Amino acid sequence: MAEPGEAVSYEELQLAARNHGLPLEAMAYDLTPTGLHYLLTHYDIPVLDAAAWRLRVGGLVEHPLEISLDELRSMPRRTVTVTFECAGNGRASSEPRAQSQPWLVEAVGTAAWTGVPLTRLLERAGVQQGAVDVVFTGADHGVERGVEQDYQRALDVGAASAEDVVVAYEMNGAALPPQHGFPARLVVPGWYGMAQVKWLTGIAVIAERFDGFQHHAYRLRGDADEAGEALTRIEPRALLVPPGFPDFYSRTRVLRPGPVEVQGRAWSGWAPVTGVALSVDGGTTWAETSLDEGPADSPHAWRRWRARWDPSPGEYVLCARAHDASGRSQPVEASWNRGGFANNSSQRVRVVCLPG
Amino acid sequence: MAEPGEAVSYEELQLAARNHGLPLEAMAYDLTPTGLHYLLTHYDIPVLDAAAWRLRVGGLVEHPLEISLDELRSMPRRTVTVTFECAGNGRASSEPRAQSQPWLVEAVGTAAWTGVPLTRLLERAGVQQGAVDVVFTGADHGVERGVEQDYQRALDVGAASAEDVVVAYEMNGAALPPQHGFPARLVVPGWYGMAQVKWLTGIAVIAERFDGFQHHAYRLRGDADEAGEALTRIEPRALLVPPGFPDFYSRTRVLRPGPVEVQGRAWSGWAPVTGVALSVDGGTTWAETSLDEGPADSPHAWRRWRARWDPSPGEYVLCARAHDASGRSQPVEASWNRGGFANNSSQRVRVVCLPG
Repeated sequence: MAEPGEAVSYEELQLAARNHGLPLEAMAYDLTPTGLHYLLTHYDIPVLDAAAWRLRVGGLVEHPLEISLDELRSMPRRTVTVTFECAGNGRASSEPRAQSQPWLVEAVGTAAWTGVPLTRLLERAGVQQGAVDVVFTGADHGVERGVEQDYQRALDVGAASAEDVVVAYEMNGAALPPQHGFPARLVVPGWYGMAQVKWLTGIAVIAERFDGFQHHAYRLRGDADEAGEALTRIEPRALLVPPGFPDFYSRTRVLRPGPVEVQGRAWSGWAPVTGVALSVDGGTTWAETSLDEGPADSPHAWRRWRARWDPSPGEYVLCARAHDASGRSQPVEASWNRGGFANNSSQRVRVVCLPG
Repeated sequence: MAEPGEAVSYEELQLAARNHGLPLEAMAYDLTPTGLHYLLTHYDIPVLDAAAWRLRVGGLVEHPLEISLDELRSMPRRTVTVTFECAGNGRASSEPRAQSQPWLVEAVGTAAWTGVPLTRLLERAGVQQGAVDVVFTGADHGVERGVEQDYQRALDVGAASAEDVVVAYEMNGAALPPQHGFPARLVVPGWYGMAQVKWLTGIAVIAERFDGFQHHAYRLRGDADEAGEALTRIEPRALLVPPGFPDFYSRTRVLRPGPVEVQGRAWSGWAPVTGVALSVDGGTTWAETSLDEGPADSPHAWRRWRARWDPSPGEYVLCARAHDASGRSQPVEASWNRGGFANNSSQRVRVVCLPG
């Protein structure tokens, strides 16, 4: 943890220079163009040879599998359009701040992922009685808090059996780029990014709850000693496409008087977004915006929202808040936790309207 | 300017979250995969309609042109393989530090750019007597130090007439991604990134030296009042692919005893790189490495270098330095300037070799 008010460290800056967020103006695109989607890599981006790569499905199964990329591509395919968000999005604004990747609000992106439903692979392998969790192993290898590891996460057998969980080999109609998990990765719609195991090499069915490092790391805790609560699905969030044009250094937005359409995107991993409210006075007053339809059959893709605004010269702070069909509502100020996770406090966009 | 020792500001962090460097392990690829190439955007990434886009060539010419993307694509094409680097690369390590995009060492990338040689366009327009500079205007619009502007840079007529200066519409064989200048951009091999005008909309021949904002901004100055020296070509630099695997937070590299190949890339905008020296003891002793050929006919693409290293357990600091055919040699510690530009101080990579 940083001390209260402590500066961004050299280590946090190193992470910020490697990883990157979505430039918010790119929310104009329904599907985020390659290279603009947020990216968080725990270790290094592995350089993998597609011809040599195999996906091993084993553990508590009748028929262990070893599948080549060509074989994976020959199986029945499904495309899911999904908004991903890093569980650490908003971390840099939590106070005090966990020292890790210092996201502000931009760790998000939406893509169409094509691959084989995981449940088809598990059916083919034949999951045995007594199965509890399914463990996914990536080729990315590193050390974290002294623990050397391949990146690993698990889903319980129920979550792993959802029809929309996919072992994906295409992103937006092209082979996965190296940084998004080439040649194949897991896609778990609605869940935060830590579940979306990239560079997938192994799937193992086990008879107990998985107890790996990343399951301890990604928990909501008030105190280091607490067991805490596992992070799973994405909390609702709305973001604005910042209107007007920017000042280079401050990123303050500049525009001139007259009607503009303010727009943005909103998503939730729990249930479809049902509304977005906009404030142009820093959160004092709010008005509902109009919400476009999301893509058909993709409840886990962001939806566009729009509102008309007719500013006079002056200074404004724009904020947006989403709510969803599960009854969850995005707070103006999210509650604090030690890891800086799931901080969906409302974005604040400073806008200066110049004289006409 | 930051005060000596002053922390990274919120504004610098906002820039670091938007822009991004090359994850150094991606120097494994001769051509940087889309999305891993460094990216610095002064304002917003414009969303442009290729059908409506036109490139206007005007000013001191016989036949002003207005060229569509289809027309540009029908002209004789040329591909140049070029390493780009941001003039601000290394800025975050200069002391005291200019407050701007806080690059460490990773603002680099290499791509094959395909387009029309600029000189063909200028010939078609017919440059008139008295031409001095050629001004390039991008569609990216913003404010910088109070000056509202479209991004603009110029080359003198001599530099603009070099055969390898290209108006590019493809990157690595595909249409330009939005963030790299779609539908067309300027590519000036050997020059720092500020010259590589993206989202190109206008080319104007003028009879005097161009005096735009960005020509004042990108200068080497010791003092704010100095005229300073214009930044043009890239100073030599070598970078290591960090060996072994990383610790997530510190990015310290970890490996085990035994021979490894240490490799990296080196480039210079002034002349071909002629050698790279490696130190494994923090710069006390140096040894020349072996240098691969660069791509044929691409003197401005990085070259791979390699060295064998057989570490015993312990801690090491690895550094590399490039020198080029112009006689320029990368310093261990570059001299300071106010903008934090062209800081090609040698990279320092901390490596821990564990017991076997």
